Amino acid sequence: MFFASDNSSPAAPEVLEAIARANEGYAMPYGNDPIMERVRSRIREIFEAPEAAVYLVATGTAANSLALAIFNPPWGSVYCHRNAHIEEDECGAPEFYMGGGKLVLLDGDHARMTPEGLEKAIGFTGRAGVHNLQKGMLSLTNATENGTIYRPGDVARLTAIARAHGLPSHMDGARFANAVVSAGCTPAEMTWKAGIDVLSFGGTKNGLMGVEAVVIFDPAKAWEFELRRKRGGHLFSKHRYLSAQMEAYVTDDLWLRLAGQANRAAARLSQGILSVPGASLVHPTEANAVFASWPRGGHRKAQEAGAAYYFWPFNQSLDGPDHEPLSARLVCSWSTTDQDVDRFLELIRG
Amino acid sequence: MFFASDNSSPAAPEVLEAIARANEGYAMPYGNDPIMERVRSRIREIFEAPEAAVYLVATGTAANSLALAIFNPPWGSVYCHRNAHIEEDECGAPEFYMGGGKLVLLDGDHARMTPEGLEKAIGFTGRAGVHNLQKGMLSLTNATENGTIYRPGDVARLTAIARAHGLPSHMDGARFANAVVSAGCTPAEMTWKAGIDVLSFGGTKNGLMGVEAVVIFDPAKAWEFELRRKRGGHLFSKHRYLSAQMEAYVTDDLWLRLAGQANRAAARLSQGILSVPGASLVHPTEANAVFASWPRGGHRKAQEAGAAYYFWPFNQSLDGPDHEPLSARLVCSWSTTDQDVDRFLELIRG
Amino acid sequence: MFFASDNSSPAAPEVLEAIARANEGYAMPYGNDPIMERVRSRIREIFEAPEAAVYLVATGTAANSLALAIFNPPWGSVYCHRNAHIEEDECGAPEFYMGGGKLVLLDGDHARMTPEGLEKAIGFTGRAGVHNLQKGMLSLTNATENGTIYRPGDVARLTAIARAHGLPSHMDGARFANAVVSAGCTPAEMTWKAGIDVLSFGGTKNGLMGVEAVVIFDPAKAWEFELRRKRGGHLFSKHRYLSAQMEAYVTDDLWLRLAGQANRAAARLSQGILSVPGASLVHPTEANAVFASWPRGGHRKAQEAGAAYYFWPFNQSLDGPDHEPLSARLVCSWSTTDQDVDRFLELIRG
Amino acid sequence: MFFASDNSSPAAPEVLEAIARANEGYAMPYGNDPIMERVRSRIREIFEAPEAAVYLVATGTAANSLALAIFNPPWGSVYCHRNAHIEEDECGAPEFYMGGGKLVLLDGDHARMTPEGLEKAIGFTGRAGVHNLQKGMLSLTNATENGTIYRPGDVARLTAIARAHGLPSHMDGARFANAVVSAGCTPAEMTWKAGIDVLSFGGTKNGLMGVEAVVIFDPAKAWEFELRRKRGGHLFSKHRYLSAQMEAYVTDDLWLRLAGQANRAAARLSQGILSVPGASLVHPTEANAVFASWPRGGHRKAQEAGAAYYFWPFNQSLDGPDHEPLSARLVCSWSTTDQDVDRFLELIRG
Repeated sequence: MFFASDNSSPAAPEVLEAIARANEGYAMPYGNDPIMERVRSRIREIFEAPEAAVYLVATGTAANSLALAIFNPPWGSVYCHRNAHIEEDECGAPEFYMGGGKLVLLDGDHARMTPEGLEKAIGFTGRAGVHNLQKGMLSLTNATENGTIYRPGDVARLTAIARAHGLPSHMDGARFANAVVSAGCTPAEMTWKAGIDVLSFGGTKNGLMGVEAVVIFDPAKAWEFELRRKRGGHLFSKHRYLSAQMEAYVTDDLWLRLAGQANRAAARLSQGILSVPGASLVHPTEANAVFASWPRGGHRKAQEAGAAYYFWPFNQSLDGPDHEPLSARLVCSWSTTDQDVDRFLELIRG
Repeated sequence: MFFASDNSSPAAPEVLEAIARANEGYAMPYGNDPIMERVRSRIREIFEAPEAAVYLVATGTAANSLALAIFNPPWGSVYCHRNAHIEEDECGAPEFYMGGGKLVLLDGDHARMTPEGLEKAIGFTGRAGVHNLQKGMLSLTNATENGTIYRPGDVARLTAIARAHGLPSHMDGARFANAVVSAGCTPAEMTWKAGIDVLSFGGTKNGLMGVEAVVIFDPAKAWEFELRRKRGGHLFSKHRYLSAQMEAYVTDDLWLRLAGQANRAAARLSQGILSVPGASLVHPTEANAVFASWPRGGHRKAQEAGAAYYFWPFNQSLDGPDHEPLSARLVCSWSTTDQDVDRFLELIRG
Repeated sequence: MFFASDNSSPAAPEVLEAIARANEGYAMPYGNDPIMERVRSRIREIFEAPEAAVYLVATGTAANSLALAIFNPPWGSVYCHRNAHIEEDECGAPEFYMGGGKLVLLDGDHARMTPEGLEKAIGFTGRAGVHNLQKGMLSLTNATENGTIYRPGDVARLTAIARAHGLPSHMDGARFANAVVSAGCTPAEMTWKAGIDVLSFGGTKNGLMGVEAVVIFDPAKAWEFELRRKRGGHLFSKHRYLSAQMEAYVTDDLWLRLAGQANRAAARLSQGILSVPGASLVHPTEANAVFASWPRGGHRKAQEAGAAYYFWPFNQSLDGPDHEPLSARLVCSWSTTDQDVDRFLELIRG
Repeated sequence: MFFASDNSSPAAPEVLEAIARANEGYAMPYGNDPIMERVRSRIREIFEAPEAAVYLVATGTAANSLALAIFNPPWGSVYCHRNAHIEEDECGAPEFYMGGGKLVLLDGDHARMTPEGLEKAIGFTGRAGVHNLQKGMLSLTNATENGTIYRPGDVARLTAIARAHGLPSHMDGARFANAVVSAGCTPAEMTWKAGIDVLSFGGTKNGLMGVEAVVIFDPAKAWEFELRRKRGGHLFSKHRYLSAQMEAYVTDDLWLRLAGQANRAAARLSQGILSVPGASLVHPTEANAVFASWPRGGHRKAQEAGAAYYFWPFNQSLDGPDHEPLSARLVCSWSTTDQDVDRFLELIRG
């Protein structure tokens, strides 16, 4: 009953096996290993993007920060949701890598920005000219930090607004697999066909040990990416171990299967919670995270039994009468079992 | 009838004379000129702060950015009002000088933050720990961008909240003189006695050609300031010309006299506008700027006669019926005359 | 016969096994896993430094850059050898992480700086004061980029000079194990007992997949390190996989055994080369790398047989008469076998 | 007898008068004043460069740092002489503004780099690729820090090497006027006709209070310059006072007349020193600075009489027998008189 975060789940067995296989003999360093060659081809195939530049790094913060830094100048504004990971959870890494930049924070229900909100934010001119930061780029998180998703049409509407102002678009896809599975679309439909220029293609939260790909659909910025990655200390000498993980991930749709499992677990959990008297959802459950509220009595039982999850917002207290509801975040991963879910539901039903 | 900005007014005659006097023979460079020695003493005297470190730079953006950079680390948040100059008008200079940092934007009427808003913003913890930016410092603009002021008691209440969280406080005093004159307090009461650690003591908008002092009340950060100033290209070799301007400014209360003149002109303008049928104030007039609304007919007359000022917000149109009011910003300076004001009032009265 | 670099060798079997063991169930993220707890204890024990702060990152560039950044301000000079990895192989990462800084390049035979050279460099004042970068810190690479080592006495002499000027000292120990084994000293003798303040304790080149520890002997800078690591995107969510590698490394002296094997292979190779007519050493062989020169005929035979290594300097041509010597770098690792070495020697003997 | 530096001389009377004239009424801020319009035209005319972008800043460090930052990326190397002002006297400002970058230091007599040295430095590849800083740009200081100059042919030979590697070229012309006067060439011949892409066109050391122009011959980088200038805090609101100084400077060849006066004074001083028994020149006198050596007895007489100048290198002692020579730097400016020179010569002759 571990729902604290998908970043606490183990790596999938296929991934461990791939690493073991990669551990034979000598391999060229720094991404020149033959596995990476295959990874690049496979990712281009998956995304129907034969020209895309594909790179691996080991953390999502690195993927996002580097992806933003190659498109947004030090004096550019990045339009993102107020709850975006780049704003809330990266301790200023994007600004560090961009050498400046400013995140302009948009509101929007369920961690999704709206076309109207984006148009207003980008259209705002203030005392235009050299005194302000310049319009820079758009960054969408998909799946969002609230467990919702943008569908391809949503993405397209937002990137079209950015493009109309001459701005490129980034997708933070730390949970990209969960979003794609949920939307039932192709990776291409969710990204470049919907106007995305650069994607952080997450693996770590979905069964890898620690690998994210950055997919740059127009490779003009590829060399700059390589230099920035190196300067950031994110170019691995023994790169084959990143390559091997990612190869396993994109082989035989492992990434989609793992995400499917996580999403199904979340759906089961979400539906189960809704059947608890006094419970309700805080955000719709569209990917692998459930944001819900249920009576404190159920919380107490679950916690006594060792269930791991966060109250959401964090700084809430369990104190209070049994029937009074309290909201929480429950994140499922590829390794969440039906038994975990069912046992948890039993507990909170009191 | 020039009310576009106080940064468009000329330098006071005393300042020109001081520069001419300073232009005799050779002088030690980089702030080692004897005039600077006197400036330092005089500013310490004015602020009743015999230990304060005092430095000169030529722009307000430099003063603010350097003042923030010596107190706020690259991973620190600066709490400021949403309309602060450091957010809206410096193209990211504070973040550039801090090597990161993030401005946390607070709301509040008339460009003033409230104790409640500040407490809430600083108290917010989110997913506490290493993932977030850390609590950094407070920055107040006084007089504010809306022509209002914080009185010493207001300042003290806000800095006390910051201090309770271990945070230092900065005052952007680009219009410090106008605020002090308006509040009728001493410079010390408005700053260190009210908890301010570092002040941008503006001169440019109030009769100098281009000089701002940075007053650091605890001199422990003085050497770091000097290094950052040099690295920013803001250490003048022929420093005597900055010193001379500032000496004139702090001699015989010139700075207070000039600000008094600007404030009185604004008050006259403000009261005059209020007597125009259909006119109203957008913000209280507490310093040298008037934010008011009056009928478009009056705007048309004023503009035809060559009056210079900005609609506020900027992107408004003059189109519309004569009686329909339109809001504007009018900034007075030491050189605004009663005749200017009265002629302008006559015009907008239609 | 792979001598191109130790970063191309596989991971040791113990390391793979540790990763597999770590892959059970859920684990707290971001370094809060129980394995990391044990790693910290064990490294403190090995270094006889019960207070030391210990952190893991995945690349040597990250370890060095972060280690330098917590000690050297943006306006500080880092004194290092002209051939140091931080100067030659990190694409400016140290300067990026320090937010400035300047590497002052010292000469010295065999990639070792001398006390005289260091004293002269630190003692140099130029136009002292605010116009110059300030004296910052010392950085030693041990083992060096030329396969030589500093013994504890050498380290102590150099750090004493730095300390006399108030400067801290860093050791880039990407090949720390090789240096310690070669010197026959304890880890403590090579580091804090010899005046080192912060160590990049390398694992990647010596049998890990990609882990380096940063050991900060005085933990006062620990929190700053954590913030900088996060901002750099180097805090792993699934940290247990770094922890597991490092635990295997420091268990049962694996790190020393692997390095011993690499050093012995290099010694065997070095001695063998010296017995080739026309061959000579370019640098003494003191760790796991051999810098030697031998006739082009031998090079041709080795290359035809598929031996992998670099000419050194790089931009040399194989063209020329058979007897004319050409210099090269040969790096051994834990996985270099006697057979590899002997077969190679046979080939170059012609 | 003030020869410590040209940055200690006063402003020329024409400059003060221009400032007084500019101090009439209101003027548009931020470089939109009508004087700047004329300055731009006049500088384009002087440089025969009708498309050039022309900007003003107040310090040489700002001019150099911004000029480099628009051409050199954070991962680029700037090739400059070891004694360049950007290396020795700006406390890392260029690296701060470039967001990285590295100065590659070239040797060369009399502070002049040689074509051979430059070719070797740029041609050096090391472990080419992503691991190193990339080739960035060339920066020449003219007149040099040793009082010598590059003639147009020298400049052209060096920029041609840079260009052959695809690199742009910067000229630090803090003493550009002295170099042009000495070479007897046109400003165009010394700059864009000789391959210079961006010039720091100094005024401060040659009779202004504190103004330098940056002349960008290809205006494609103009907008980026404006943003970087603003972010650096170097955009003046009351810009007219910079404009006025520069207008005086480029009117009626004032800049050339002032530099001619300084150069003539240096020549007189240099020749006079050579006639002193035991004296010799350390560097040829080609602009406004004299580097010479003469007996300690003469030094003592000069210093007792109050002559101001620096021993060169700085850290020399006056102790020693009267006849033993000691080297020094003597800088003349537009305000150095024949009487000053002659009196000084009389003193050191003993």
